[in-house]
Amino acid sequence: MPHSTLDPSRLSRQGFPEVVFCESKTTAQIIDNLRGLAAANGRALGTRLQPDRADEVTAALPGSSYDPISRCVSLGDTPAPAENTPSVAIICAGTSDLPVAGEAAATLSFLGHPVRNFNDLGVAGIHRLHDRIDEIRQSSVVIVVAGMEGALPSVVGGLLACPVIAVPTSVGYGASFQGLAALLGMLNSCASGLTVTNIDNGFGAAIAAHRILHNR
Amino acid sequence: MPHSTLDPSRLSRQGFPEVVFCESKTTAQIIDNLRGLAAANGRALGTRLQPDRADEVTAALPGSSYDPISRCVSLGDTPAPAENTPSVAIICAGTSDLPVAGEAAATLSFLGHPVRNFNDLGVAGIHRLHDRIDEIRQSSVVIVVAGMEGALPSVVGGLLACPVIAVPTSVGYGASFQGLAALLGMLNSCASGLTVTNIDNGFGAAIAAHRILHNR
Amino acid sequence: MPHSTLDPSRLSRQGFPEVVFCESKTTAQIIDNLRGLAAANGRALGTRLQPDRADEVTAALPGSSYDPISRCVSLGDTPAPAENTPSVAIICAGTSDLPVAGEAAATLSFLGHPVRNFNDLGVAGIHRLHDRIDEIRQSSVVIVVAGMEGALPSVVGGLLACPVIAVPTSVGYGASFQGLAALLGMLNSCASGLTVTNIDNGFGAAIAAHRILHNR
Amino acid sequence: MPHSTLDPSRLSRQGFPEVVFCESKTTAQIIDNLRGLAAANGRALGTRLQPDRADEVTAALPGSSYDPISRCVSLGDTPAPAENTPSVAIICAGTSDLPVAGEAAATLSFLGHPVRNFNDLGVAGIHRLHDRIDEIRQSSVVIVVAGMEGALPSVVGGLLACPVIAVPTSVGYGASFQGLAALLGMLNSCASGLTVTNIDNGFGAAIAAHRILHNR
Amino acid sequence: MPHSTLDPSRLSRQGFPEVVFCESKTTAQIIDNLRGLAAANGRALGTRLQPDRADEVTAALPGSSYDPISRCVSLGDTPAPAENTPSVAIICAGTSDLPVAGEAAATLSFLGHPVRNFNDLGVAGIHRLHDRIDEIRQSSVVIVVAGMEGALPSVVGGLLACPVIAVPTSVGYGASFQGLAALLGMLNSCASGLTVTNIDNGFGAAIAAHRILHNR
Amino acid sequence: MPHSTLDPSRLSRQGFPEVVFCESKTTAQIIDNLRGLAAANGRALGTRLQPDRADEVTAALPGSSYDPISRCVSLGDTPAPAENTPSVAIICAGTSDLPVAGEAAATLSFLGHPVRNFNDLGVAGIHRLHDRIDEIRQSSVVIVVAGMEGALPSVVGGLLACPVIAVPTSVGYGASFQGLAALLGMLNSCASGLTVTNIDNGFGAAIAAHRILHNR
Amino acid sequence: MPHSTLDPSRLSRQGFPEVVFCESKTTAQIIDNLRGLAAANGRALGTRLQPDRADEVTAALPGSSYDPISRCVSLGDTPAPAENTPSVAIICAGTSDLPVAGEAAATLSFLGHPVRNFNDLGVAGIHRLHDRIDEIRQSSVVIVVAGMEGALPSVVGGLLACPVIAVPTSVGYGASFQGLAALLGMLNSCASGLTVTNIDNGFGAAIAAHRILHNR
Amino acid sequence: MPHSTLDPSRLSRQGFPEVVFCESKTTAQIIDNLRGLAAANGRALGTRLQPDRADEVTAALPGSSYDPISRCVSLGDTPAPAENTPSVAIICAGTSDLPVAGEAAATLSFLGHPVRNFNDLGVAGIHRLHDRIDEIRQSSVVIVVAGMEGALPSVVGGLLACPVIAVPTSVGYGASFQGLAALLGMLNSCASGLTVTNIDNGFGAAIAAHRILHNR
Repeated sequence: MPHSTLDPSRLSRQGFPEVVFCESKTTAQIIDNLRGLAAANGRALGTRLQPDRADEVTAALPGSSYDPISRCVSLGDTPAPAENTPSVAIICAGTSDLPVAGEAAATLSFLGHPVRNFNDLGVAGIHRLHDRIDEIRQSSVVIVVAGMEGALPSVVGGLLACPVIAVPTSVGYGASFQGLAALLGMLNSCASGLTVTNIDNGFGAAIAAHRILHNR
Repeated sequence: MPHSTLDPSRLSRQGFPEVVFCESKTTAQIIDNLRGLAAANGRALGTRLQPDRADEVTAALPGSSYDPISRCVSLGDTPAPAENTPSVAIICAGTSDLPVAGEAAATLSFLGHPVRNFNDLGVAGIHRLHDRIDEIRQSSVVIVVAGMEGALPSVVGGLLACPVIAVPTSVGYGASFQGLAALLGMLNSCASGLTVTNIDNGFGAAIAAHRILHNR
Repeated sequence: MPHSTLDPSRLSRQGFPEVVFCESKTTAQIIDNLRGLAAANGRALGTRLQPDRADEVTAALPGSSYDPISRCVSLGDTPAPAENTPSVAIICAGTSDLPVAGEAAATLSFLGHPVRNFNDLGVAGIHRLHDRIDEIRQSSVVIVVAGMEGALPSVVGGLLACPVIAVPTSVGYGASFQGLAALLGMLNSCASGLTVTNIDNGFGAAIAAHRILHNR
Repeated sequence: MPHSTLDPSRLSRQGFPEVVFCESKTTAQIIDNLRGLAAANGRALGTRLQPDRADEVTAALPGSSYDPISRCVSLGDTPAPAENTPSVAIICAGTSDLPVAGEAAATLSFLGHPVRNFNDLGVAGIHRLHDRIDEIRQSSVVIVVAGMEGALPSVVGGLLACPVIAVPTSVGYGASFQGLAALLGMLNSCASGLTVTNIDNGFGAAIAAHRILHNR
Repeated sequence: MPHSTLDPSRLSRQGFPEVVFCESKTTAQIIDNLRGLAAANGRALGTRLQPDRADEVTAALPGSSYDPISRCVSLGDTPAPAENTPSVAIICAGTSDLPVAGEAAATLSFLGHPVRNFNDLGVAGIHRLHDRIDEIRQSSVVIVVAGMEGALPSVVGGLLACPVIAVPTSVGYGASFQGLAALLGMLNSCASGLTVTNIDNGFGAAIAAHRILHNR
Repeated sequence: MPHSTLDPSRLSRQGFPEVVFCESKTTAQIIDNLRGLAAANGRALGTRLQPDRADEVTAALPGSSYDPISRCVSLGDTPAPAENTPSVAIICAGTSDLPVAGEAAATLSFLGHPVRNFNDLGVAGIHRLHDRIDEIRQSSVVIVVAGMEGALPSVVGGLLACPVIAVPTSVGYGASFQGLAALLGMLNSCASGLTVTNIDNGFGAAIAAHRILHNR
Repeated sequence: MPHSTLDPSRLSRQGFPEVVFCESKTTAQIIDNLRGLAAANGRALGTRLQPDRADEVTAALPGSSYDPISRCVSLGDTPAPAENTPSVAIICAGTSDLPVAGEAAATLSFLGHPVRNFNDLGVAGIHRLHDRIDEIRQSSVVIVVAGMEGALPSVVGGLLACPVIAVPTSVGYGASFQGLAALLGMLNSCASGLTVTNIDNGFGAAIAAHRILHNR
Repeated sequence: MPHSTLDPSRLSRQGFPEVVFCESKTTAQIIDNLRGLAAANGRALGTRLQPDRADEVTAALPGSSYDPISRCVSLGDTPAPAENTPSVAIICAGTSDLPVAGEAAATLSFLGHPVRNFNDLGVAGIHRLHDRIDEIRQSSVVIVVAGMEGALPSVVGGLLACPVIAVPTSVGYGASFQGLAALLGMLNSCASGLTVTNIDNGFGAAIAAHRILHNR
């Protein structure tokens, strides 16, 4: 793999294995990297693989599967988490945010964490959140995924004591400026102690949750 | 007044008299303009008069008064509104938003509309809003003033059917970029049918409310 | 509909039913949502449905129709408004702004409001506006749709006393920055009491007009 | 003058002499440069000299005078223009734009052009412009100075056939972003053939007018 | 033409006829508008017509022709300018700027002005400009078209006394931000009295030149 | 306190008491709020109190103290944490980042968490970080505070498995754009699972750490 | 070549021949320019030639070859550098940065400089850099290519004494804003004496290295 | 010095000693750091020390001196460079750029490099540059300092073969956006192989020149 320098010690240093970010790699590089990581770690995950390239990748890698919503490809089996493993709640403001939430869910599952999804709870119908807040409170970490004005993490953060990770998405148009509005909103939240990831970075939010859960 | 061209027909054309925006005028221009408008309309209002220039203005204009929170100067008396006049609710996300809310309130009062203030109802403690939403619903128009992430109008807009005017403020720091975060948040609200004014433009929100109430 | 959380109380809370924003949903989600809303409310509206997906949607939903200018799909019949119902004037600066104006018109019609259209009245030929201002004045609310420098709402707002809702469009090129120039222009209007929606948000302007007309 | 490299051939190359931009120079550099230019050209002009430094400059340069509105200092006498010299009209949207209009006027006068001022003709009261448009049409070049949304040049440009130079100003607040809104508005004008200068650049507009008048 | 409001008095008001901006219109609207303007004025011009739509337009309009470099379509014949008519020089910084320069040239020719082209004279090889500056000086107005850092107008403006109109182009990549770098560079030119148009606005520069030449 | 709506249930809802953000409040409001919170919770903390207002606040509130580096004021005593309480490491890229790091430290101490400070470990001298990384690894959560290019969290995040919270600061000049460069850098970190707060938001980082530690 | 003005003296003036930037030129212009330069200099190089146009170019120019990774086309043979010629190290943060690094390498090779490539050494696995730093130190100039947060040049610059040229790439998503984050990061580096090129400008970095090596 | 972590190996690692950036440090920190570095290296340099704090610093440090133009403080004596040491040319576009040029000169002198200054050679009077280009060509490295549109480096870079380092300054107003226009201009230069530093970063340019000269 002359185009890449594998990082085999990442698992021991950081507590999670390398994952392939597919977006700006060639298909050949993606296949090489997934195969190399699976050889080292027994299984591998790739994120942001566009649907029109997925068939070529899965055909080249027996045992791999691709999910078109989350745009993730995985290779090898992930053992089911033990019972009573603390879960991560992933809350979505709208249907259009599902791909980012799906990326977070796929990454957490790959790392062995149970995930609970709460979809389409945007603040314009705040009762939908109140109806489910007690369920949400059962999880140990909450990831909130929202585009447009990105207000949902502020309300959620004000109702919960646990770690809340806010993920802005590029859902919206006009003055959303591809997710900038949601990003700025989350960074300026009046709810204290939220932290924020890059726009559309469901993967990063999952790793942040893993850093919290893996180390306690 | 060679520096200004009075617009005496504004009251008949637009339904409200000219108001003096003091910020980038000289003190002499402010005094001239207020005196000229009071001569034409019986009374006059000035907005955004910084406290350090207020004494000079009020000294030159007998019968004028200045409020340091809203930074408004008024000249002449405003008659009390008739009973049962529809009111405007002004909701504030935080204590720091009070100057902008005050400017809206002063303008509405000058135009004869009753105002009801609801302070410090930011979304991080969403129960504070729920506790008062029935009171708020009594008003015919709602102005929501918020800085930081500007999420409050989205929640309010989702709970009410009346016109909701969102006013972003420059309250915040860092990535609030002097109110840009709140402005973008309000423009991208997931609550439908909100409209938005310029950052810190309490005056404009009041006139927008007046346009609604004056014409029905 | 596991991907969406319907909001059946929106009509009672906000005075208008949920509408499907089609842009970032899959075709299957759009069809599901329109069918679900029509089941609840008798009819349904979808906005921002790109022409290349319209056939699939209308084929799946008998009784639906699609308009390629406004990019709206509607399902079910809207009763004609009663005579003397107050109307909304929609003024367009240029021919290229028609899709956004059309979205506003389709939404208002869906909600039962008569609409009067005034096309191509940009300020570079200001006499075109003067020729029609008396007609415009017959409406109770005015929506002004403009791209490029977005100057038209300022002139209109200075001539009328009624509520004026300004909608910036992404029409333009270069330093229009996809509608940012028009948006900033409208937010900074020297005509007092204008309010502004997101870029290209004809739907939002219609709902704002509905909030005004529905509640008086 | 080791800190500066005089450009004595500018008058012959470009048709106008060097002028001192005072803003980011030390007071000693300003005095040196004005004295040097007056020695070469008989008279000299400095722009953007803040009031608190003016006394020191005029005290050091006998025969100089300072105008606090335009913030210009001039040294030496300018002969009156010949009768029938074509004039430049300078139109101002608001009282707060006077300093920039004044800088343009002072520069044009220094270069021998008659100037006619039209103040406070913003588009929110469009009749004020219509009342004076025939007067404005007498001039050979028109400079339009406006802050906030900067809409005035579009309307003026649509009414006149002569060259129209648009000067955005930093007047405004919030989303005016120190004149950016006016600048973008003017660059995107729907009136064809306007040209634009930097924000607050009254001097540049005057030189542009001079380039037009001087060469025909 | 219900989608457009013709402006037949533009020629008398502004000295040039309406021109069709094709970019965001449908092909049917373009054909309608060109035909309507040709009926009124004897000939018509359209700008920014993408090559893939040109055949349909020229097929529908006998006597029309299309130039793929300048992306202009013209309908009807333009009489040759009289001898000794003052010319406009159009200077291009690089080969990639030719489409914008071509749009300016096509517009000027349509309006009866002789044009002289000077291509690929960017400042990185400043001798190329010096070699031709005397030729350039023969023209009465100079249009300078440049992308990337947009430095050429500053150098040209420092060498000439005539009106200089600077047109930034979107040529470049990375931190050119689609022409923003060139636009800002031209607005901040150290050469006095340049004026600037929108990014890629060759048409606007031509009309500005026409305003200068037509009125002297 | 008519200007504020206290939130007494915050401690039970979110696990930490309300803290006074002093920056855009009047001195009277600050004193009122601190006194009110101390009455409710036994002690109180205020952040972002500028030094020139500190004396007035501490004089009005016996038992309060002010630290000019972190700009925090505290009222009432905080009990020392129990032995073996997990600590938070706060790493600073440069001396100029100390105020933000100090705000995080003061907030964590107020909430009962031991803090370990690591100052001036910027990546330009990467050995300084390597020398101390084993010490840093003893803490359960790491906060990394950096201005300029904000690269330090990426390196730290690549070396550690625990939660890493990145705080951009406004330290820098020119193209740092008041912390924007550091903020963007941290959001785009190639080290997975970092989360980010607003620029200069040491308080928010401390609350985020508290949310992690308090709930495990 | 009427569309271009060749610059045959560039080699003597600047020490390197003209190179064809292909991105916004027509295929015919590219072929013309490459052929013209090869006629003058014996060989020629073109950068940023998209793969879908490469076949047409190489077919038209016998002796030319195209590399799809670096997107460079070369015409004519480059002699191998003499032994002991100082080399340039090109360090890449990630696999996705290879096209930009390849453009730098192709340009340097064309100019006769030995190149040594170090791929995928991003700071999230800092040991990968430490493992190879002694090798890197053998080169006389170092080019560091990185997208996302662009932190690698800061670390490299802190470890080396030689000239370090930082090249931001557009690799990333969301708040990378097409390379803006990396660009700002590199401009604000805490490692002193780095210099920076435009985003994705591998060619420019190579010429900068050539300017250093060619002149000592 | 608990607030700072000295980096004593910087001289051996990078070839130049640590320098104190004074802007966001307290006066006590500045004095401590300068004293500490002088103890280690025999002499020390501080940059960006504002004039109003200089007296306190020089009073505390016998043998120190302060220059108010470059805002640099130095402690200890610098030996004169050997004869025939290659020099650095520093070219300034305007008088207002002198502070940044001075910072570069002071840093280079501190490091033992002869400096030659060329002031006020902006491109609006391009002959001033041509008059001195042969002198400039005698230096081995050229630093070009310019604000406003920042065009000077493009012209210089096109005339010279040696390394050219471009330094944008914050000189300008309006759309210069505190140096952004100059920065973008330099990054997009059509002259190949320029490299760029942060806005106003004369120090960084000097270190970059030192990296070139020190290592050949």
